[in-house]
Amino acid sequence: MRTDERKENELRAIHIETDYVKHPEGSVLITVGDTKVICNASIEDRVPPFMRGEGKGWITAEYSMLPRATQSRNIRESSKGKVSGRTMEIQRLIGRALRAVVDLEKVGERTLWIDCDVIQADGGTRTASITGAYVAMVLAFGKLLKDKAIKELPVKDYLAATSVGVLKGKEILDLCYEEDSQAEVDMNVVMTGNGEFVELQGTGEESTYSFDQLHTMLQLANTGMKQLVDIQKEVLGDLNALIDRNRNQSAK
Amino acid sequence: MRTDERKENELRAIHIETDYVKHPEGSVLITVGDTKVICNASIEDRVPPFMRGEGKGWITAEYSMLPRATQSRNIRESSKGKVSGRTMEIQRLIGRALRAVVDLEKVGERTLWIDCDVIQADGGTRTASITGAYVAMVLAFGKLLKDKAIKELPVKDYLAATSVGVLKGKEILDLCYEEDSQAEVDMNVVMTGNGEFVELQGTGEESTYSFDQLHTMLQLANTGMKQLVDIQKEVLGDLNALIDRNRNQSAK
Amino acid sequence: MRTDERKENELRAIHIETDYVKHPEGSVLITVGDTKVICNASIEDRVPPFMRGEGKGWITAEYSMLPRATQSRNIRESSKGKVSGRTMEIQRLIGRALRAVVDLEKVGERTLWIDCDVIQADGGTRTASITGAYVAMVLAFGKLLKDKAIKELPVKDYLAATSVGVLKGKEILDLCYEEDSQAEVDMNVVMTGNGEFVELQGTGEESTYSFDQLHTMLQLANTGMKQLVDIQKEVLGDLNALIDRNRNQSAK
Amino acid sequence: MRTDERKENELRAIHIETDYVKHPEGSVLITVGDTKVICNASIEDRVPPFMRGEGKGWITAEYSMLPRATQSRNIRESSKGKVSGRTMEIQRLIGRALRAVVDLEKVGERTLWIDCDVIQADGGTRTASITGAYVAMVLAFGKLLKDKAIKELPVKDYLAATSVGVLKGKEILDLCYEEDSQAEVDMNVVMTGNGEFVELQGTGEESTYSFDQLHTMLQLANTGMKQLVDIQKEVLGDLNALIDRNRNQSAK
Amino acid sequence: MRTDERKENELRAIHIETDYVKHPEGSVLITVGDTKVICNASIEDRVPPFMRGEGKGWITAEYSMLPRATQSRNIRESSKGKVSGRTMEIQRLIGRALRAVVDLEKVGERTLWIDCDVIQADGGTRTASITGAYVAMVLAFGKLLKDKAIKELPVKDYLAATSVGVLKGKEILDLCYEEDSQAEVDMNVVMTGNGEFVELQGTGEESTYSFDQLHTMLQLANTGMKQLVDIQKEVLGDLNALIDRNRNQSAK
Amino acid sequence: MRTDERKENELRAIHIETDYVKHPEGSVLITVGDTKVICNASIEDRVPPFMRGEGKGWITAEYSMLPRATQSRNIRESSKGKVSGRTMEIQRLIGRALRAVVDLEKVGERTLWIDCDVIQADGGTRTASITGAYVAMVLAFGKLLKDKAIKELPVKDYLAATSVGVLKGKEILDLCYEEDSQAEVDMNVVMTGNGEFVELQGTGEESTYSFDQLHTMLQLANTGMKQLVDIQKEVLGDLNALIDRNRNQSAK
Repeated sequence: MRTDERKENELRAIHIETDYVKHPEGSVLITVGDTKVICNASIEDRVPPFMRGEGKGWITAEYSMLPRATQSRNIRESSKGKVSGRTMEIQRLIGRALRAVVDLEKVGERTLWIDCDVIQADGGTRTASITGAYVAMVLAFGKLLKDKAIKELPVKDYLAATSVGVLKGKEILDLCYEEDSQAEVDMNVVMTGNGEFVELQGTGEESTYSFDQLHTMLQLANTGMKQLVDIQKEVLGDLNALIDRNRNQSAK
Repeated sequence: MRTDERKENELRAIHIETDYVKHPEGSVLITVGDTKVICNASIEDRVPPFMRGEGKGWITAEYSMLPRATQSRNIRESSKGKVSGRTMEIQRLIGRALRAVVDLEKVGERTLWIDCDVIQADGGTRTASITGAYVAMVLAFGKLLKDKAIKELPVKDYLAATSVGVLKGKEILDLCYEEDSQAEVDMNVVMTGNGEFVELQGTGEESTYSFDQLHTMLQLANTGMKQLVDIQKEVLGDLNALIDRNRNQSAK
Repeated sequence: MRTDERKENELRAIHIETDYVKHPEGSVLITVGDTKVICNASIEDRVPPFMRGEGKGWITAEYSMLPRATQSRNIRESSKGKVSGRTMEIQRLIGRALRAVVDLEKVGERTLWIDCDVIQADGGTRTASITGAYVAMVLAFGKLLKDKAIKELPVKDYLAATSVGVLKGKEILDLCYEEDSQAEVDMNVVMTGNGEFVELQGTGEESTYSFDQLHTMLQLANTGMKQLVDIQKEVLGDLNALIDRNRNQSAK
Repeated sequence: MRTDERKENELRAIHIETDYVKHPEGSVLITVGDTKVICNASIEDRVPPFMRGEGKGWITAEYSMLPRATQSRNIRESSKGKVSGRTMEIQRLIGRALRAVVDLEKVGERTLWIDCDVIQADGGTRTASITGAYVAMVLAFGKLLKDKAIKELPVKDYLAATSVGVLKGKEILDLCYEEDSQAEVDMNVVMTGNGEFVELQGTGEESTYSFDQLHTMLQLANTGMKQLVDIQKEVLGDLNALIDRNRNQSAK
Repeated sequence: MRTDERKENELRAIHIETDYVKHPEGSVLITVGDTKVICNASIEDRVPPFMRGEGKGWITAEYSMLPRATQSRNIRESSKGKVSGRTMEIQRLIGRALRAVVDLEKVGERTLWIDCDVIQADGGTRTASITGAYVAMVLAFGKLLKDKAIKELPVKDYLAATSVGVLKGKEILDLCYEEDSQAEVDMNVVMTGNGEFVELQGTGEESTYSFDQLHTMLQLANTGMKQLVDIQKEVLGDLNALIDRNRNQSAK
Repeated sequence: MRTDERKENELRAIHIETDYVKHPEGSVLITVGDTKVICNASIEDRVPPFMRGEGKGWITAEYSMLPRATQSRNIRESSKGKVSGRTMEIQRLIGRALRAVVDLEKVGERTLWIDCDVIQADGGTRTASITGAYVAMVLAFGKLLKDKAIKELPVKDYLAATSVGVLKGKEILDLCYEEDSQAEVDMNVVMTGNGEFVELQGTGEESTYSFDQLHTMLQLANTGMKQLVDIQKEVLGDLNALIDRNRNQSAK
């Protein structure tokens, strides 16, 4: 039995609230159990220097936690004067994951900034960030489309993320903080709506894991992913149909 | 007529939601018009090195805005590697204001950390932060009292803040962003429940102001302050009575 | 009686020495009691990026103390690798105050840099800096005028600053360090030659103050300001007449 | 056919030179094709503050490239004043991987510092670093054992790393720089001598991959790993037997 | 003929004003032609961590220029967030030079901080700093002696510095800024009252120099040094006799 | 007798290996006794902003040590976030020394970057860096010449460096670490093939030195320099003749 009485293959309660902050082009509050992340998407009409003149867009992400999103207060990275290794790893992961399902040529010379700010943390903040950031991104591109700044929605497929792991020898889906801190293996999986892998990061925590354990964890991840994509579809409304059309075209 | 059709002496809609984030000892979401700030209060069982051994407590504040709390995206201070002058000014102001109504001797050797994180900005973020931070602080001290870590609530009076200014020659209360960006004079006022000043910061923006204008602005501030304190009283529930008792004692 | 036997409404001895350093366009050593500040004004023939092409000038200030300007040695901010919150607050204040009496359009696309370096500190370094910086600024603009780089002196009025406060319940003018460190209320006032406010910053130091106390302090400030402006007029010589003409014109 | 005419399942030429630098407790130059990394292991007789008093050891790693290890010169991170996200990710990975095969209790309150400095880069610098760092670490622990500072070799198993990927739809082992920069999928695999996973990081580069492709890549990794461990055994000499004994014991 | 009509072996006008700033234990304003440096000496009753428990003292120096000490304004090192290579070189030089004539054992576990702040620069700021810092240091030790915190003056000899160089093929003493910027060779010489070298730094500026040129420059330096030491003796008053006694003792 | 049984005027074993790293335009591993430094020269087709449009080239150097090049591990400067004073001094010295023998006009608007990375340190790392960097630089310019990017080799003379010092009252050549740490005087000498000085830096380490001692040290340096230049000539092969031709021309 899990600490919160879930089954091994059961996600926590998921909720995605759109238009959470009024200024950004896309804004979402994603709730996964007690983990809450504001995901804002901003469009800037230029790309970083190394990409200028290529006619392509760029997607980049930043991640942060409020100092008291956690049990004990963390020092702000702005006060420390530098961003931690953990934060850098997460923001690189979010950006890379989103770029995998976007046709950057169709974005034009624009940068999409994703800001994931964790308001309350209870495990799985990086996977919740990816799942929420995807929705904020699609909403922002939807706005560009509506404003006729771009001709097509440049999104090739759905994208969501969840964690799986091994706790006391048992494979489980969507670890909360208490589970995560005790798990022998911790794996983050980012997948598309088509069930392809975008990113797989599995770490033995002073421990190791076998191919069979890997296999079981990937099946659990697949189960969770389907539910996450269903929730995304629901909140995306009309944009849903445009993504489906893109998927079908690329499948041909 | 003001841009949002308010009267000169009218505050925007104010709402204070308590227990907003689950981990902090005190947590509040304050809404002032379209300005939204999460104010978290954390208790740490030690004081900064320069105060050790004095048996007194300390209160310190940090302030930040989400990058997209504003119309256009701001670069994170953690990415820049340093905190701006504006941020430093605001966090020094918040800390100083709160300390003015707390009996630090009664706090014991503890630090109260206040974190004000602006989710959405529409003018007056620093005054909203003070008004909300006060509530978060009282809740945190209330928890210490309930846990019997302290004997009395160390809060001597209510404390709230608002802005006043001069726009096109006319004095007004509680400026929204559009008003603030055009005002000739911008003044932040922090007052106690007894109507005493704690902090007064009035700036002519490439402009100046007379003693009469100052006088009118202070009357507007006084009007606003009373309403803010009434809202604070409402959300503080039982702690209300303890603060009133402290006020009466110090008045004697 | 005050520690240095002054009356409540008495300034310390003030002296302003011009042409103190040979390289700057304007250079002043201001002495206020035992507080000594070198104020240098430098003209740069361009403005910061955010103002380019507007045809307007800019004024910005930097403030620093020699490590041993004070009783005990302070670590240099260059060694710490960052500028403190206090320093930022002061340099923002100096720049803002000067800009209030300058017609930036008439400056052209130039930046005036003010450097206030405290050689010896005994309270009131920020107000001494503003009073001295004003003179250095006028001298630098006077040089531009003499060199025919500008057509008119872009200075609309005199500008000086002093501190007032409440010490043991009594309102006093121009606090020295010893008084400042014990005062219940500390207020910095920046005013024009016409007696208008440019900036008012009044802080209760773990204390509060009433409207009546505010009123008394502002009267003291007014008294001091007149003497400061008289001293400025004396050292500015011929430029005096040009400022007076500008004041009269704007009064019409 | 691959650019350097290797077969899909063929590693580049590997060489590990021990005692490369004279000062460190363990020092290795690892050569993987044209990639050359100096791996130095240093023992320090204390642990970081967060671990003091627990009687356990700690392993941490730092990674750097000479500015001209690559085709075009990179700016030094010491000149930039900060460590990049890529560097942080790699050094966190190296430390975590090594800790997975070490019994930290048996190390005592000591820190093992691993420094991986890339002299020449041609792809796979992070996996070469792990493979070389493992040898440097075992040599350093071997020295502690010889000096009787510890009673047993605290190493539970062999550990090596290699990369696999998908290039033009084909799975391949041990990518050189040219292959890596064109690959659709890039995966780093860290495994033990027993064939268990320690870390798996697979990234679609603006692309995705299926479960079948994952499976094929993991088989290639397994093939490479066996050869790497054989080379490690050769250079470790007598320490070989001690590691084997530890493996057998933990297998029981 | 030199730009300021001096002879080749002629120093500029030198003046040393003592007790320039009131707080430091030793304070001097040294003027060398148009170069002006405030040298403050502060005593701290502890040494840096790496020296604790050895019973010895330490001497360290910091050097800075006001932004407008020079023809055009320099950015403050505190704003840049780091100290330049030039500044570091100079402060290391000043500290090393002073330590060469001090018996650190006799200082006890104290740190002497020297702060050299250049108010106005016209060449030779580092050598003026050393010559002035020596006087400030002796005054500070004199104060310790008077307060009976130490038993003997820990200063073994006089110490002064000057520059020599080659300009248009001719060797000259004490270069002003204009000469320095055109010289082929620039050499800083730090010597004791006994005519021994403490530091010699001679640099060909995109040029080289022969042994004969070196010889001529060192003779010029020797001439200048004698005059500098005479001026130091004058301002040191009674402390003069104590230094002479120490010189005679060490000569035995 | 010296610790390693050398005579007073005897260099340690010197070896210069060319083409050490494959990417740089010039690459050398220089070995001086147990000191080993990789010197890489990179050509960049532009100059720093302050030199643009002058048609001249620039030479700049960076210096670093691997953390474990020394007996005990040093913290990386990239981790500290800043470069130490010692490092800055050394890299400024290397750049200045190389520029003294190069005709920057003939380099064109290019920057030559020299990277000296100390792999193993046993005293004299800065002088070994200069001697090795000279060879790497000539090789890089030789490559430019071969590629017809420049018309002549812009190198006017040979350049090498060594250390001399006074240990227990005796002058010696080329100090190893053990000698260096005990020496009373430490002097670094950079000379051309023609026996002219480029840089002389002699420091009394809490000690002083006479003119006679200086003289003896310079003779030792001269002896060492000749052997160093002979080794450089050997490894430079054909480029040797071009440098000799330039020397003869400038001698006329």
